[in-house]
Amino acid sequence: MQAERMEHVSFPPLSRVAICGGTHGNELSGVYIVREMQKQQQDKVGSVSVIAVLSNPRAIDVCRRYTETDLNRCFKSALLSSPITDSAPYELRRAQELNAQLGPKGSENAVDLLVDLHNTTSNMGVTIIMDSKNHLTAHIFKYIQTNMAPVPVSGIVMDQPPSESYSLDSVSKWGFSIEVGPQPHGVLRADIFNMMKKALDLTLEWIQKFHSGCTFEGGDMEAYGWVKSVDYPRDPLNGELTAAIHPNLQDNDFKLLQPGDPLFLSFSGETVKHEGEALYPFFVNECAYYEKKIAFHLARKMTQTFPSVSVKRN
Amino acid sequence: MQAERMEHVSFPPLSRVAICGGTHGNELSGVYIVREMQKQQQDKVGSVSVIAVLSNPRAIDVCRRYTETDLNRCFKSALLSSPITDSAPYELRRAQELNAQLGPKGSENAVDLLVDLHNTTSNMGVTIIMDSKNHLTAHIFKYIQTNMAPVPVSGIVMDQPPSESYSLDSVSKWGFSIEVGPQPHGVLRADIFNMMKKALDLTLEWIQKFHSGCTFEGGDMEAYGWVKSVDYPRDPLNGELTAAIHPNLQDNDFKLLQPGDPLFLSFSGETVKHEGEALYPFFVNECAYYEKKIAFHLARKMTQTFPSVSVKRN
Repeated sequence: MQAERMEHVSFPPLSRVAICGGTHGNELSGVYIVREMQKQQQDKVGSVSVIAVLSNPRAIDVCRRYTETDLNRCFKSALLSSPITDSAPYELRRAQELNAQLGPKGSENAVDLLVDLHNTTSNMGVTIIMDSKNHLTAHIFKYIQTNMAPVPVSGIVMDQPPSESYSLDSVSKWGFSIEVGPQPHGVLRADIFNMMKKALDLTLEWIQKFHSGCTFEGGDMEAYGWVKSVDYPRDPLNGELTAAIHPNLQDNDFKLLQPGDPLFLSFSGETVKHEGEALYPFFVNECAYYEKKIAFHLARKMTQTFPSVSVKRN
Repeated sequence: MQAERMEHVSFPPLSRVAICGGTHGNELSGVYIVREMQKQQQDKVGSVSVIAVLSNPRAIDVCRRYTETDLNRCFKSALLSSPITDSAPYELRRAQELNAQLGPKGSENAVDLLVDLHNTTSNMGVTIIMDSKNHLTAHIFKYIQTNMAPVPVSGIVMDQPPSESYSLDSVSKWGFSIEVGPQPHGVLRADIFNMMKKALDLTLEWIQKFHSGCTFEGGDMEAYGWVKSVDYPRDPLNGELTAAIHPNLQDNDFKLLQPGDPLFLSFSGETVKHEGEALYPFFVNECAYYEKKIAFHLARKMTQTFPSVSVKRN
């Protein structure tokens, strides 16, 4: 079914762009991309003012995801305005600093676009995680996808009111995350680094074209919408895993799971199978999600329509 | 050149075997194999008394390599006999406990065989790390290699006087390590788990045959002997990496590096090439070795001759 044609929309320029790496201190592609930008003092790319930020310096120093709490869960409006006590975790203080520097969230002063750079141990290729109602990001996603083929570029859409968005990119007017994997946390791989760098370069290239007056045609995009999360089978007594992701599911992010397909292989050799609706898995066996009790997420694939866009002239 | 035929050697039975996992707390295959053995209270396998040990419980609890210092560098004789002060790292105390339980190192009371289970982020398949003069281990290695084909099984030989051996397996009379990768630390993959389990099952199977009176023919084996370690190119000012492992080297452990072959790709795009003798890389881009300033090791391939063996009857 062809989605209804949408009206053309014009947007103000994306004059101020923040590139953030090390929001999780052991996801090294973003850490090294940002460090390189800082070394080159690259504060202007064509018509765009760019600020490169290492989000969680303490976690980067110790090469861990975070020191006290996950920084990328600290950006809900209520947390950003909560008073800081002596016992507040470092990451909450850092979130408020970042909000002051790059936001404040929801205000006119916030940077126009924040691109947050992440890695995953899951085999997700390049994945853009974006707000479902963000038409500019939809265009950038399509641009990256088209220009990086045959590298797989997937889109995940999130649907939350901005005040409830907990991630760093929600501080800006138009933010999104780039996840690239598979890469072990604490390891830097040149192939993953190059894919992330390419996605970032294409983002800035798109903005140049946008600023120069191009009209980008509207259209449809396929993206994944989160349905539910699934935990590992665990021993009820001590919470320890009793099974691993099944080899048929491992490394098969974004491949449709049909009812009856294997999910887990227990240490005693039994297979746990998928039941119910056919859905798409992602973040399969992501290292950082063991403690969050998530073995993988399941999504529905959906088609989203976005309008043609161009820059709004003053 | 055919190596000279060696005399037949008979050895006492390997009556007491220790299987150790979690010597590094975030290398999960061994942690879960040992936990399963403990659950099944598997203290006897045929003619072998088996003890399954979680080596570093505190590191396992926090899913890190270690809490204060690398446990698998704490087993030199001098460290094992050093007095424990209040400021001694937990891992040194734990090493002395393990030495009391499974050793003492160099004594008649030590367990006959200690198999220490490890994972690596490097693409090393199944790798047996053993003492160059250990004929029993050479036989077990060949048995694993023959029975796991086409899974790649490589051997690395170390040449240190026992007192200078720093690893846990040196506590036993005949010890070796099984390294299996690639697997991100903190992640459990069913394929890697199954490979490690298979190598361990074959070890115990070999011992059963040995005890039952089989004579194992002598022969030659190919193994890698460490020559030197190579660090990442770093910024002399702050020690930060200025390059990643080159994509041509990444995942190519045990593939011969010729002079002129690429080693590193710098963030500004330059390639660093291998110079000098052709050598074999291993532990390429191992996560835990960044802090040890090792990007990879280089080895020479050598042929080792081992004698036929059988069990010594009382």
